[in-house]
Amino acid sequence: MPAGFFCVPKPYSAMPSNLKLVTRAHHPSDTIVEVGPVCVGSGEPVMIAGPCSVESREQIFVCAEHVSSAGAHVLRGGCFKPRTSPYAFQGLGYAGLELLRDAGAAYGLPTITEVMDAGDVDAVAEHVDILQIGSRNMQNFTLLRKVGQVQKPVLLKRGMMSSIDEWLAAAEYILAEGNSEVILCERGIRTFETSTRNTLDLSAVLVLRERTHLPVVVDPSHACGVRRWVPALTRAALAVGADGVMVEIHPSPDEALSDGAQSLTLAMFDELAADLRWTRPAA
Amino acid sequence: MPAGFFCVPKPYSAMPSNLKLVTRAHHPSDTIVEVGPVCVGSGEPVMIAGPCSVESREQIFVCAEHVSSAGAHVLRGGCFKPRTSPYAFQGLGYAGLELLRDAGAAYGLPTITEVMDAGDVDAVAEHVDILQIGSRNMQNFTLLRKVGQVQKPVLLKRGMMSSIDEWLAAAEYILAEGNSEVILCERGIRTFETSTRNTLDLSAVLVLRERTHLPVVVDPSHACGVRRWVPALTRAALAVGADGVMVEIHPSPDEALSDGAQSLTLAMFDELAADLRWTRPAA
Amino acid sequence: MPAGFFCVPKPYSAMPSNLKLVTRAHHPSDTIVEVGPVCVGSGEPVMIAGPCSVESREQIFVCAEHVSSAGAHVLRGGCFKPRTSPYAFQGLGYAGLELLRDAGAAYGLPTITEVMDAGDVDAVAEHVDILQIGSRNMQNFTLLRKVGQVQKPVLLKRGMMSSIDEWLAAAEYILAEGNSEVILCERGIRTFETSTRNTLDLSAVLVLRERTHLPVVVDPSHACGVRRWVPALTRAALAVGADGVMVEIHPSPDEALSDGAQSLTLAMFDELAADLRWTRPAA
Amino acid sequence: MPAGFFCVPKPYSAMPSNLKLVTRAHHPSDTIVEVGPVCVGSGEPVMIAGPCSVESREQIFVCAEHVSSAGAHVLRGGCFKPRTSPYAFQGLGYAGLELLRDAGAAYGLPTITEVMDAGDVDAVAEHVDILQIGSRNMQNFTLLRKVGQVQKPVLLKRGMMSSIDEWLAAAEYILAEGNSEVILCERGIRTFETSTRNTLDLSAVLVLRERTHLPVVVDPSHACGVRRWVPALTRAALAVGADGVMVEIHPSPDEALSDGAQSLTLAMFDELAADLRWTRPAA
Repeated sequence: MPAGFFCVPKPYSAMPSNLKLVTRAHHPSDTIVEVGPVCVGSGEPVMIAGPCSVESREQIFVCAEHVSSAGAHVLRGGCFKPRTSPYAFQGLGYAGLELLRDAGAAYGLPTITEVMDAGDVDAVAEHVDILQIGSRNMQNFTLLRKVGQVQKPVLLKRGMMSSIDEWLAAAEYILAEGNSEVILCERGIRTFETSTRNTLDLSAVLVLRERTHLPVVVDPSHACGVRRWVPALTRAALAVGADGVMVEIHPSPDEALSDGAQSLTLAMFDELAADLRWTRPAA
Repeated sequence: MPAGFFCVPKPYSAMPSNLKLVTRAHHPSDTIVEVGPVCVGSGEPVMIAGPCSVESREQIFVCAEHVSSAGAHVLRGGCFKPRTSPYAFQGLGYAGLELLRDAGAAYGLPTITEVMDAGDVDAVAEHVDILQIGSRNMQNFTLLRKVGQVQKPVLLKRGMMSSIDEWLAAAEYILAEGNSEVILCERGIRTFETSTRNTLDLSAVLVLRERTHLPVVVDPSHACGVRRWVPALTRAALAVGADGVMVEIHPSPDEALSDGAQSLTLAMFDELAADLRWTRPAA
Repeated sequence: MPAGFFCVPKPYSAMPSNLKLVTRAHHPSDTIVEVGPVCVGSGEPVMIAGPCSVESREQIFVCAEHVSSAGAHVLRGGCFKPRTSPYAFQGLGYAGLELLRDAGAAYGLPTITEVMDAGDVDAVAEHVDILQIGSRNMQNFTLLRKVGQVQKPVLLKRGMMSSIDEWLAAAEYILAEGNSEVILCERGIRTFETSTRNTLDLSAVLVLRERTHLPVVVDPSHACGVRRWVPALTRAALAVGADGVMVEIHPSPDEALSDGAQSLTLAMFDELAADLRWTRPAA
Repeated sequence: MPAGFFCVPKPYSAMPSNLKLVTRAHHPSDTIVEVGPVCVGSGEPVMIAGPCSVESREQIFVCAEHVSSAGAHVLRGGCFKPRTSPYAFQGLGYAGLELLRDAGAAYGLPTITEVMDAGDVDAVAEHVDILQIGSRNMQNFTLLRKVGQVQKPVLLKRGMMSSIDEWLAAAEYILAEGNSEVILCERGIRTFETSTRNTLDLSAVLVLRERTHLPVVVDPSHACGVRRWVPALTRAALAVGADGVMVEIHPSPDEALSDGAQSLTLAMFDELAADLRWTRPAA
């Protein structure tokens, strides 16, 4: 058979030479990121849930209550929001950070929030348990270096048009600074298809499993953009072997200040969590 | 909050007006395509398996034996191969068609093969149970019309760069000619990511479920292009709710005349099928 | 500096081994395709113009008159239309073919039309001077082989999802059958950007210039989808070194049966042609 | 004719409501950005040239000499380099900034360099005449806000994955802070085609011309990634109506510390500039 045209995925030996600390060659066993009592990458899937934005004390507390009662593991809530428009809601900032910390503490849940600016990293790291780097900042190298210098787990979202190797190179920036507690998060890539907000690339979980020792979670909410599709994509993410999922929830999604269309109602979340418990190993 | 920039998927009422017969509005209940004893779209997932190309009597018979013993439902085998290069193996043609028919008959399996040319449709329809329209021919309107005029089920693969609505419009061509036995097959779309051969768009299954009554199966082999990733994507496809999967298998994949890299060995296939039986309703 | 991540275009020696007859290595000098008195690839740009579809005798004759008086070279007009929807206008078929032939003859213009079906090739070849293979049929291998067997120039449009090497492999199918009179036509590729109908890839002209001896023309009308952007893209195509352009024109575009939004009015076309004459060598 | 499937570009009235200050509706006449004696957006194209990275005093001075003698307008030179890998050359930083300032002063050329970090903005603004925001930082909102607060022209590159409307929204962040001296720079978008580093989207110039009053320049070097293709794309960019181009040059490109493959030799640059002078209005 003559050689074909199609790209056949690179064998492991073709790993870009710029990747070192993130590779399986460097660190053959799986990295497990510990966040309080929660272990990401241990083989038991983890669920991270919460509102897109922290909007009020009442809102984040009722979300935390459901996250806890559903048996989920980490409470998310955005305080600094990267928004395409300068006129959109930009988050509650430091006030939101305190509400998130308090809600997590009240229900015994570790917390995660996005940090957008190197200047905020130290303060954010004092309030939450995991620092999230958003899609738009995946190649904000100043920010990557800064979170590499604190001793907190980092969840690094894939850029919406970043190749897997570019994503790993972004993680390499963090590890190169001394912080190896990195969780990768697939959240959909930009393609020509517009029926969904992005196209969830579940194959990436399989590719990453071979190339890196870092744990991988999946965000189905941003990938599809429509709440009624989130439960099935959550199941698919776990079926493909992700170390966890991150979903958005809201007490009244249609009134949310951001991303309401893709946020699960609390009832939908309870149902999804109950269903997953059936397929997960006992907690 | 000001209106956002991101595309929010169209509500059902925004369905393009050119789609009629394929829509849920026209036909609210699920279509079940019957192929001999096999029902595609009934709620119980179907597995279609076989070699990329029929290469010899021995090869297709040993594949058929495994498909049957594994409890899978339909035997695939390419006879007319669309190849990017004019110098690549083009399939055994009509000789292959007879081998496929004989192997299916010997093991009581319905068969499927691709038809590339309107002039071959009638002859192919006499030999196999399902006519496959390949990705490159999704908008070969002459061919779509022709398969719409025969009374055989048609499996319509998504074009590698076709939107979901264009895909449904291609199906509409078939239904408009009088044949409503159409199965849609997601097989990955072309994106910027080259770690996998294509990017499997599992969200498409969810979008289609709302827009059309036709059954949807998933081809993980062409999507990822690497055999060791096929089992996990098969599980994900079923988790997201596909009506079935189509996988490539080969007795000695590294010697296959086409698509060997993505073909499961028979041992891998047996293991996958055994594993799936666990999660499927009893046959 | 460590090796980078970005793809650096393949050196010429990395040309896929499946490409033979189309390559510069095989045929170092430029191929010039002669169509009556018109030479495509001679160094002087050629303009192909006409309506998307032949709609009536009056319509195609008034277009031909303008094409001729503007000093353009070839008259286009679609008779068999590939339409996404089965319910859209499908062209006048053979009746249109006769109108196109008559209009070309009346004004001394060579003609071009799309052929969609291998069964129509011989008849179409009797009526027109150039056979066009449309984007959706770029990998309709049956059709490629058939037009490779007639002695008429073929204009091969790039698939909207096709890489440059796949496009060249499609041309190889035609040359392998004995017909080396092939003109390539860039018409925009599908990307995530939706402000234009497609994204015109003018760099492809430069890549092709190195990889193949075949002439390359550009279709700005389908690329952008908006008539007021066509003149500037025409100028850009000629500036980048294309051997010609193909534009859609219509006497009353807003009433066109297909592609009206991107068709130039006759006045716009006259103005564009007059402007280009200034930059072209004397005819 | 039934409504089509294809996206027809939005009419002007469909401009996203989040865009205000950047729109033609808000500011109908063209904005001209003055940089010393150079006017960007005045109708006479501007050429920005220089090395990817400032590497040494000798290197930037010889580049500046050629930029000046060729009649080009602005000297570029990277001091802070965003690199995919943490192990790649990261630029000379503040030392480079002083070399760039000195070279510009020696040859009477305004200067431009990229700023990656909000914390560097004030210092960089003291050394150069135009602040560049790179592709990867197009949605680094902290940085956008900061450059909106200084009174220096800003060149905002398009994100490789960003739609035109998202790009305009990023510019809106800068204008909303009080700085309306913004130049947009198209530099290619990421697509499935890998023969070029990116796909240059020249149609974007036409779309922007209608939607915004801000000037638009084109960077052909990053778009194609290969120096021998840069001159033709430069001519195409000017033919489509861009307000200028930005090209990379280097005294010995094959030894460059970054982006050597796409940097013009000084001889190629001299030839290109001489050729362009012919098509430009007298300086």
